[in-house]
Amino acid sequence: MSTKSIVLTGITTTGTPHLGNYVGAIRPAIEASRDHDVLPFYFLADYHALIKCQDPERVRQSTLEIAATWLALGLDTENAVFYRQSDVPEITELAWILSCVTAKGLMNRAHAYKAAVQANEESGESDPDKGVTMGLFNYPILMAADILMFNANKVPVGKDQVQHIEMARDIAGRFNHIYGEHFVLPEAQISEDTAVLCGLDGRKMSKSYDNTIPLFAPEKQLRKLIMKIKTNSLLPGEPKDPDTCALFGIYRAFATKEETAAIRRRYAEGIAWGDMKNILFEYLDDHLKAARERYDALLQAPDKIEEALQDGARKARSYSAPLIRKVRHSIGIRGLSL
Amino acid sequence: MSTKSIVLTGITTTGTPHLGNYVGAIRPAIEASRDHDVLPFYFLADYHALIKCQDPERVRQSTLEIAATWLALGLDTENAVFYRQSDVPEITELAWILSCVTAKGLMNRAHAYKAAVQANEESGESDPDKGVTMGLFNYPILMAADILMFNANKVPVGKDQVQHIEMARDIAGRFNHIYGEHFVLPEAQISEDTAVLCGLDGRKMSKSYDNTIPLFAPEKQLRKLIMKIKTNSLLPGEPKDPDTCALFGIYRAFATKEETAAIRRRYAEGIAWGDMKNILFEYLDDHLKAARERYDALLQAPDKIEEALQDGARKARSYSAPLIRKVRHSIGIRGLSL
Repeated sequence: MSTKSIVLTGITTTGTPHLGNYVGAIRPAIEASRDHDVLPFYFLADYHALIKCQDPERVRQSTLEIAATWLALGLDTENAVFYRQSDVPEITELAWILSCVTAKGLMNRAHAYKAAVQANEESGESDPDKGVTMGLFNYPILMAADILMFNANKVPVGKDQVQHIEMARDIAGRFNHIYGEHFVLPEAQISEDTAVLCGLDGRKMSKSYDNTIPLFAPEKQLRKLIMKIKTNSLLPGEPKDPDTCALFGIYRAFATKEETAAIRRRYAEGIAWGDMKNILFEYLDDHLKAARERYDALLQAPDKIEEALQDGARKARSYSAPLIRKVRHSIGIRGLSL
Repeated sequence: MSTKSIVLTGITTTGTPHLGNYVGAIRPAIEASRDHDVLPFYFLADYHALIKCQDPERVRQSTLEIAATWLALGLDTENAVFYRQSDVPEITELAWILSCVTAKGLMNRAHAYKAAVQANEESGESDPDKGVTMGLFNYPILMAADILMFNANKVPVGKDQVQHIEMARDIAGRFNHIYGEHFVLPEAQISEDTAVLCGLDGRKMSKSYDNTIPLFAPEKQLRKLIMKIKTNSLLPGEPKDPDTCALFGIYRAFATKEETAAIRRRYAEGIAWGDMKNILFEYLDDHLKAARERYDALLQAPDKIEEALQDGARKARSYSAPLIRKVRHSIGIRGLSL
């Protein structure tokens, strides 16, 4: 096996990738996929999606769109392992095994669970667990299985996910203590300040605010959405503050330093909002056109996406199958033949 | 597929089968395995064993001994499906899927969990979840997956397990409601009054009391253990009460009505304990000899046991694989090809 550092990232399959996802997560991951000093694992977390989403068509469509997006953007699938979680049956098996060495008290302290309980209490609900499924409660165990299954060394996460990596370390440590060393203790790789884009309404671009611009919106829709981005009421000729402007934020996330500096000057000179929207649209459209064409072509040829995912699953299982065999042996689940 | 009624029984692989197991559970199940009006599923519940037992050698040894016992006793593996839970990877996958439609509140109410919490509270422990693993907390979900995976109609259980069957029904109903009809709602088949044997110390024969007589103890050990069974201090010639006597209870569980009546008369006539112990030993030894020989031969040929279990796993997966495909499709986990 490789001695490269293993970096693992999961993508929950409940939505359509938008500009904010691209800048904050997808683009850095695609770049990292080309780093031959690491072995990156990227997976479509469809079994996590079930926790949040009971709409099968949305899970399927999201899987398709996310996979097409990553491939269209040039994910290096030679270097990286790109697979669908549900194609690796060893993962749910490992989740069960890990659950038997995980204290319930640890799960009681998980942020996502505690937030749900708090929301119930604040709304005067008498049952603190109202609306909480066992999927939500078990979520950190499945995530630990995702990570430990491939003995990932590093897991890039936002600050809100650091606790889950600590839980995966705890669980791995507990298993290793009881059954011998099988799992690497993963480390959280906290993304310093990933670019955060503002959405149509000026708040952070996020599916939950319904203010997103799909990364591969068709040209017409892209123009329409950019024209809808909220601006202030300053008139053409009045100097404007780029640093509080959603349009500028998006532009800067795509443009070079020089291009950004030039636009910053035009804000000081009082650029008209309509002009800035046109500039942003042209820039994005130009920047994304080639990838969007590849994306559209992939959506028309889902067989190709499926094939890439099956290739990825084969690669992933070349790691997960031998490890689960060792883990099974260590816990006493063994063939009986001498 | 068969239209026979499906009856499913799991055997946790943490101990060596003893006389009490045989009379209470194994013998009726072996008899049922020959009933061609039903399709019986019997499985070695090794993933449940992990909840209670972190000793790998014991899990392995117990799996071997239990499988050898059932085969030596003439389990009809042509009619019945006899498999190891861990050989059917669809089960832990289904457990995850079911967890996403299971309310945490339902698990909060499970007897085994509540008993653990109560024990902590009674011992003055400040953390009610002390010593509770997520395996224990999730146990009813894995059991639901065991049952629903094969759309079992009936599950023979003791009274203490009825709640788990009700939970499996709840979970199945919830899944069917959200994603369409996929699962049969199982029914508990409560064993009326299964014979309960007393152990060496006069209490119920049970692994937890460490008072058991292994079903296939070698002749010498069997004799020694029977001689150790606790009796009262009545002398030879004094009339004795068979119905409160462990020796008589065991004898009756094996003998015919006529033989039992004859021994009952000898109790009234004041049989000596030493004589009764000899009679019981001779009777049991004679009754179990042939099966014990088959058992010993099987333990010497674990390959044969493994082969039987692999045959069983193939049969089991011919049910579980098509069902999990349908279930996956219903929740949106689908191949992307058109």
